[in-house]
Amino acid sequence: MTTAEISIATAKRTQFVSITSKVAEVIANNGWLDGVVTIFVPHTTAGITINENADPDVARDMEWFSNELIPKNKNFRHSEGNSDSHIKASFYGSSVQVIIRNGKMWLGTWQGIYFCEFDGPRERKVYLAFTS
Amino acid sequence: MTTAEISIATAKRTQFVSITSKVAEVIANNGWLDGVVTIFVPHTTAGITINENADPDVARDMEWFSNELIPKNKNFRHSEGNSDSHIKASFYGSSVQVIIRNGKMWLGTWQGIYFCEFDGPRERKVYLAFTS
Amino acid sequence: MTTAEISIATAKRTQFVSITSKVAEVIANNGWLDGVVTIFVPHTTAGITINENADPDVARDMEWFSNELIPKNKNFRHSEGNSDSHIKASFYGSSVQVIIRNGKMWLGTWQGIYFCEFDGPRERKVYLAFTS
Repeated sequence: MTTAEISIATAKRTQFVSITSKVAEVIANNGWLDGVVTIFVPHTTAGITINENADPDVARDMEWFSNELIPKNKNFRHSEGNSDSHIKASFYGSSVQVIIRNGKMWLGTWQGIYFCEFDGPRERKVYLAFTS
Repeated sequence: MTTAEISIATAKRTQFVSITSKVAEVIANNGWLDGVVTIFVPHTTAGITINENADPDVARDMEWFSNELIPKNKNFRHSEGNSDSHIKASFYGSSVQVIIRNGKMWLGTWQGIYFCEFDGPRERKVYLAFTS
Repeated sequence: MTTAEISIATAKRTQFVSITSKVAEVIANNGWLDGVVTIFVPHTTAGITINENADPDVARDMEWFSNELIPKNKNFRHSEGNSDSHIKASFYGSSVQVIIRNGKMWLGTWQGIYFCEFDGPRERKVYLAFTS
């Protein structure tokens, strides 16, 4: 196994940020050829997902609907007032797995990797691990 | 790492299709013995999940409730009219991991693997990667 | 690949149980040093997630909101009356992946691993597999 780290600065409370090209750069720089990369978010108010990379309205609709479904102001107890962010993080999940073949991510044509900020703006990290 | 591919034809807009036996076939045909298989959906309007394999009403209830919770007609911007499908795909997720021991999937008694179609009917693919 | 198993007894119908220290124990006992551990739930009415380990109100808010969003009594067909539990299991997911470096889980400061019971109380298992 080899590992790497990516830094991300988010700009809004809820924001889906494409990290596809950053991940591609890590794969190329490390010479990862054939294996699986685990892309892991070490935060509890952010998640990660794979979705459409073409029309930015898809990411916008996902941001909007996440807040519709899990509103900030519900009957929550957690005193920091961001229980909705924690719940969103778990719904999207803490990691994705991407298969690498011959140094390239084996994704569908329309797929991109999104860091899902649910309590920004913040400085964030993503951890990567390659196993083969 | 070794990889494989499965093809699926779906018949409805929302449909949970069991792929457990197809995955078992790939494992047997490739002689995968002890390791982890990553089962990855290369689409942005379909997901994958592990759930009950016995009573078909469970898959039916999951299909039905997905559409209750994330309706097709909300205040979405994406012009293709399938933002709900994209959101469902991310809620269920783009991959599952299954442990293989001595050539068999190490699943619970009632577990099956479901391809989750959210914008069918379509011809779909699933990618598999085995690492040990 | 090497594997291990954890046992958990849950006490309520819906309960997020921290298994972080149990997982750490398995890693130490097996001498797993550098790799990825797949932590897999072999049940169809329970899930697993990574979230805040500090304020217990976060887990309580997640339990409460899961039942708000996916109530037990909806127009479900499955005769066992626990379709909500199956749906929650798939929303949270059947496995998480954690990167291990030098024998330690590479988690964020506030992250813990939670077994998510949605149809307890029950005796439950979690499967672990380490690949490097």
